[in-house]
Amino acid sequence: MKEIVIGIDIGGTYTKFGAVDRSGTSLAEDSIPTGEHEKAEDFVSRLAEKIRAMLAGLPRDLVPKGIGIGAPNGNFFRGTIEFAPNLRWKGIVPLADIFRNHFDLPVYLTNDANAAALGEMIYGGARDMKDFVLITLGTGLGSGIVVNGQMVYGHDGFAGELGHTIVDPAGRECGCGKRGCLETYVSATGIRRTVFELLAEYITESSLRDISFNDLTARMISEAADKGDSLALEAFERTGRILAMKLADTVAHVSPQAIFLFGGLAGAGDLILKPVRRYLEEYLLPIYRGKVCIMPSQLSEINAAIAGAGALVWNALT
Amino acid sequence: MKEIVIGIDIGGTYTKFGAVDRSGTSLAEDSIPTGEHEKAEDFVSRLAEKIRAMLAGLPRDLVPKGIGIGAPNGNFFRGTIEFAPNLRWKGIVPLADIFRNHFDLPVYLTNDANAAALGEMIYGGARDMKDFVLITLGTGLGSGIVVNGQMVYGHDGFAGELGHTIVDPAGRECGCGKRGCLETYVSATGIRRTVFELLAEYITESSLRDISFNDLTARMISEAADKGDSLALEAFERTGRILAMKLADTVAHVSPQAIFLFGGLAGAGDLILKPVRRYLEEYLLPIYRGKVCIMPSQLSEINAAIAGAGALVWNALT
Repeated sequence: MKEIVIGIDIGGTYTKFGAVDRSGTSLAEDSIPTGEHEKAEDFVSRLAEKIRAMLAGLPRDLVPKGIGIGAPNGNFFRGTIEFAPNLRWKGIVPLADIFRNHFDLPVYLTNDANAAALGEMIYGGARDMKDFVLITLGTGLGSGIVVNGQMVYGHDGFAGELGHTIVDPAGRECGCGKRGCLETYVSATGIRRTVFELLAEYITESSLRDISFNDLTARMISEAADKGDSLALEAFERTGRILAMKLADTVAHVSPQAIFLFGGLAGAGDLILKPVRRYLEEYLLPIYRGKVCIMPSQLSEINAAIAGAGALVWNALT
Repeated sequence: MKEIVIGIDIGGTYTKFGAVDRSGTSLAEDSIPTGEHEKAEDFVSRLAEKIRAMLAGLPRDLVPKGIGIGAPNGNFFRGTIEFAPNLRWKGIVPLADIFRNHFDLPVYLTNDANAAALGEMIYGGARDMKDFVLITLGTGLGSGIVVNGQMVYGHDGFAGELGHTIVDPAGRECGCGKRGCLETYVSATGIRRTVFELLAEYITESSLRDISFNDLTARMISEAADKGDSLALEAFERTGRILAMKLADTVAHVSPQAIFLFGGLAGAGDLILKPVRRYLEEYLLPIYRGKVCIMPSQLSEINAAIAGAGALVWNALT
């Protein structure tokens, strides 16, 4: 008999799911489109069917111990998805309860960045750490904070929204309705905005001058930087500086041993890591200097979301 | 038999101490000057003598359960005072260990803002809360963060230095060596700097034009504001706005139920509370709006420091 958990990562486009063992290894995986069902109930019915089919294909000695779900705007305390801008289901969706109608298993739900942080703690680079932070750099900027070995959920289950800390209250327009939020500068979208700001500011030649805003991707920027494009390099420099400035504030709050960078933009490696490390030391209060490691997540991108969601169950079982 | 604890508040000028019961009531209090002894060992010997004298004067049925110490730059994990700029003892002082040579009691030490936060949790307005933040507004700005019912110390015991989060990386010079730290704007000293900025910026008449920087106190500013002085009122407005902007970041980290303001500048009441509350709602991510209470500390100023230090022991006993 071997214990497994079911990890589910609900994204704007696809929902991926898998059976994950205690080491984070995925024994089977599958996915369905997220947006095809108008009602969350119908979506979960379809998903439950596919999960049963996946489990049926696995050896008999595997025992599922629970279901962990990572979802945008997921609330751990209530098991709900609340006002998620990128999902079709509006308002407050009691997703964990809907799952409980289909499975006689414990169901845990949190937001995707918290799930990734738990994944880092259970299977990844934070296995020996009690105080760390994980930053997801995708379309937006998400975060999961662990203090004293526990996920920080706050009084309402919504703690850890570092993407909406303020860089400049009169700064860039953010999708949340505010201005100058961190994710408008530091994310795959943020660095594109920075490139366009630099293209306007300087007359330097750049391969990025031939690409429209909508066509530009973070990968194109890192490829240009790798080829020595000075505007692209400056975009990473600015992005790293702003991230470091706000991470210095994070350190002043919770004094973590390490901060992990996860997701798309983190894939740029030293292009982003080096300026973050350099500026962080400058912005830190002297008592913190030289103590905080900035490192890439040690979860592999492909399974991280599923394994992270599964980590919610392992974490509850321990 | 009744249990008591010994609370000690080490300040730059005076060290206050007292015997505190479980309700936070101080049964006896005394103080000695902090700076008279060149060696920390001699200071503790003198303090131990005075504490014994105080205990000897109390009823025989009181049983001391431990010693709690709040000190600038106090480190909970190590029981040390580390590089405190306002104390005479330089470097790392193993204060808790020195105390243990004099008393056969558990000794706990942390920084003064953490001690105040524990006081708020054990005796004050946070008695029913698991997630809250306390901000001390004195000469500088200190903070204590409680998550899930536990004090946040971080991996190194130095978490919760919100006074050194960054308002403007090119801003006001700070004693820590950085620029633009929150406490250079929001503290008794910070609001004086803001008044002088306003006196330079505007030509408005103000009673504060007759006072030198060194003579100006935060109380004079709040008295002028109470009389309708528009520059003084604007100084509170700016101070409140900047504090709110940074507290919005704090909410995005730990999503507290309440934020308590404690110490000198908090005594200005609505002059500071109203702008903080108004701007906080503006700067908060929508999911947090209307949920976070900004309130004055419910610890009485006089005993708070001693009772807070004592709370370290009560917290360890529970």
